[in-house]
Amino acid sequence: MTQTAAVRGLEGVIAASTAVSHVYGEEGRLVYRGYDIYELAGKASFEEVAYLLWNGELPTSQQLRHLKERLSAHRGLGSEGLSVLQALSNDALPMDVLRTVVSTVGLEERVADRQKGEEALESAIVLTAVIPTILAAFDRRRRGLEPVEPRTDLDHAQNYLYMLRGSEPSPADSRALDMYFVLLADHGMNASTFTARVIASTEADMASAVVGAIGALKGPLHGGAPSLVLDMLDAIEKPENAEPWMRGALSRGDRLMGFGHRVYKAEDPRAEILRRLASEMDQTELFSLASAAEKTGLRLLEEQKPGRRLYTNVEFYSSVVLNAVGLPRDLFTATFAASRTAGWSAHVLEQYGDNRLIRPQSQYTGPQGKRFEPLERRG
Amino acid sequence: MTQTAAVRGLEGVIAASTAVSHVYGEEGRLVYRGYDIYELAGKASFEEVAYLLWNGELPTSQQLRHLKERLSAHRGLGSEGLSVLQALSNDALPMDVLRTVVSTVGLEERVADRQKGEEALESAIVLTAVIPTILAAFDRRRRGLEPVEPRTDLDHAQNYLYMLRGSEPSPADSRALDMYFVLLADHGMNASTFTARVIASTEADMASAVVGAIGALKGPLHGGAPSLVLDMLDAIEKPENAEPWMRGALSRGDRLMGFGHRVYKAEDPRAEILRRLASEMDQTELFSLASAAEKTGLRLLEEQKPGRRLYTNVEFYSSVVLNAVGLPRDLFTATFAASRTAGWSAHVLEQYGDNRLIRPQSQYTGPQGKRFEPLERRG
Repeated sequence: MTQTAAVRGLEGVIAASTAVSHVYGEEGRLVYRGYDIYELAGKASFEEVAYLLWNGELPTSQQLRHLKERLSAHRGLGSEGLSVLQALSNDALPMDVLRTVVSTVGLEERVADRQKGEEALESAIVLTAVIPTILAAFDRRRRGLEPVEPRTDLDHAQNYLYMLRGSEPSPADSRALDMYFVLLADHGMNASTFTARVIASTEADMASAVVGAIGALKGPLHGGAPSLVLDMLDAIEKPENAEPWMRGALSRGDRLMGFGHRVYKAEDPRAEILRRLASEMDQTELFSLASAAEKTGLRLLEEQKPGRRLYTNVEFYSSVVLNAVGLPRDLFTATFAASRTAGWSAHVLEQYGDNRLIRPQSQYTGPQGKRFEPLERRG
Repeated sequence: MTQTAAVRGLEGVIAASTAVSHVYGEEGRLVYRGYDIYELAGKASFEEVAYLLWNGELPTSQQLRHLKERLSAHRGLGSEGLSVLQALSNDALPMDVLRTVVSTVGLEERVADRQKGEEALESAIVLTAVIPTILAAFDRRRRGLEPVEPRTDLDHAQNYLYMLRGSEPSPADSRALDMYFVLLADHGMNASTFTARVIASTEADMASAVVGAIGALKGPLHGGAPSLVLDMLDAIEKPENAEPWMRGALSRGDRLMGFGHRVYKAEDPRAEILRRLASEMDQTELFSLASAAEKTGLRLLEEQKPGRRLYTNVEFYSSVVLNAVGLPRDLFTATFAASRTAGWSAHVLEQYGDNRLIRPQSQYTGPQGKRFEPLERRG
C-alpha cells in the first residue's frame, strides 16, 4: 500500500482483522462470530452472547451457568468504587460518572497488565458485571433514593432494571432490554471499539481500554445522541406534525436525528429488529409518532438528496425501546456502553492474543525550518 | 488506496494529517510546529512550548504571561477531584490514579461537548495545569505527608517539584525537569495521541480524549516502561557487569530496556539531548553506569542482529534525568503524561477544528453461516 496523503477518518482503511463481529454495510447484515444477528436476537440471552463474543462459541449449559455465577459474583462495587461514586455530584453526566467509576474499578485490580488468557477474561467479566450497578446506584442517588443491592438470582438485563427500580421488572421489560443488550453488544470496527484496540495494543490493561472506549462512545457522532431522537419526537409532538416540523428542520440545515450510518447502505438489521420490538411494547402512542417521523423523515431526505440509501439507524428505535422499559433518556448512551462492554472487551482479548502496537504515520502539514527567537525579540 | 487485508499495527498507514509535530524517523529529527526540537530544547520553557503546540506560534511576552496566569489559576483540584483522590488507596498505580482523577476533572466541567475554539483550549489548559497537582498530592499522601498547595508564582515544572518535595527545588533541577517536559510534550502520531484523536473524532470532550490517552500511555509498549531502565541498571549494578549481565539477558531471550523505536532509524534527538542533560546532573555514578550499559547494549545488539540501526530511545536517559530530580520511579510514566497532555490536547484541538469521525474498516476472519442451536441441544 502506498499513500501520499492521510485518509480522512480512516474511511475504507482496513485497520485490523477480527473474528469477533462484522458489519456487511452493503447488504445490511451484522454477524457475531459467524452468527447472523437474526440467529441470535430473541433467542440467545445477553450472557450467551457475551460468552460467544469472548470465547468464539455459544456456551453449553454448564459453561453458561458458570459464566452467570461469575457475572453475579462481580456485580457489587468495591469500596473504592463506592467512595468515588459518593464523591461525584448528582448533576454529573452519566457517561462521565461511568468513565470515572470504571476507571476506579480498573484501579482496584491493581495490575499493571493482565493480558494473558484467563486473567484478561476475568477483567472483561468484572467490568461487564459492574457497569449496571454503577449506573443504577448513580441514578437512584440523584433521585434521592437508596441504592438497591444487585441480586445474584436475576439475569443481567433483569437485574439492571431491578436495581434501577427497586422492584422486579416484568418479563416483557426484561426481555426487551435483554434483546437490546444482545443487539448492541458488538458492531465491527466502530470508533469506540477501535479506541479500545489501540489502547490494548500498547499492552495496557483491560480497564484502560474500556475507559477509553467509554470516552469515545460519549461523543455525539458515535453513541452520544440516542436521547436526541426522543427530544425530536417530543418536539414533533404528534404524527401530523412530522412533515412541517421536519421540513422546517431541514430547511434550517438541521440534521434529523436517528437517520443514516457511515457503514450501512441498506437497512441496519438492528433497526429492523428494534422497530418490531418497539411495536410490541406498551407504548402505542410513542410508537405511532416514531413510525410517522420515520416515514416522513425518509421521504423528505430522499426528496432532498435522492439515491443516498438512507435508513433509520439503531438509535432511532433504541430510544423508543429504552424509553418503554423506563430508562431516563440521559442513561441511554451509558446503557449502550453497558452492552458494548462485552464487545469492547472481546476485541481487547483478541488484540492481546495477537498483538502489534497500533502506531500509524501522519502527514505533516505544518511549516518547516523555523528558528527560535528569544522572548524579548518576540514583542 | 486498495486493500485486501488489514495492515497490522497500521504500520506505514498515514492516519491523519497534522501541523502539530512530526517525527522524521530516517533522519532522527523531531519538529514541533516547524521548530526542530534542537531549536527549542534548553531555550523555550514548557509553557512556551505548550502555547506553541496549542496555537501554532510561540507566544509574545504578554501572551506568555497570560497563559502562565491561566495555568496557575487552574492548578488546584476541585472538591470532587479531591474527594476522589482521597478515596483511592495508597497502593494504587499512579497511572490508574491519574486516569481516574483526570476523568473526575472532566466530569467537573459538566459539559457534554466543548469543542469550539476558546472553550476547548480552556479544557487543555485546565488538564495540563492540574495533572502535576494530582500526582504530587497522591505521592505525598502515600508517603504519609500532607499535600502541598500549588504556588502560583512558580513555573510549571518548578511547581511540580515544589509540590512533591514541599520545598523549592534548585534551579538546576527545575531546568532539567522543564527540559524533559519540553522534549516529551509531543511526538507525531504515537499510540496515545492517536487514541486521543480517535476519541475526539466522535466529538467527545477533551477530558475523555486525554483519559483515553493516559490509558494508552500506561501500556508497556508505549509509555509504561521507563522505570524498567532503572531496574535494569540496578540489576547491572556496576559498569564492568554490563557485558556479562546483558549477554545473559539476551541469551535468555529477554529484551534490553530502553533500546530501539518503531519509527526512528537514526538516533532519537531527544535521547541525545537527555544524554547530555543527564551527564551534567549530580549523579556521576548512575550516569557512568548508564553510559556503560548503553555502549555495551548497542554493541551486543549489533553483534546479534547486524545492521538494525538500533539506538537508545527516549526512555533510556529520561529515567536517569527523572531519577536525578528525585522522582520516584513509579511516577515516571505519569510524569511523561503530565508533559504529553500538552501535545494530546493540541492534537484534539486540531481534530476538532477539521473533524471527520475516525471509523476504519476491519477484515472479518471468523466463521460464516452458523445456525443457532438452543441451549438444551448444546449439551
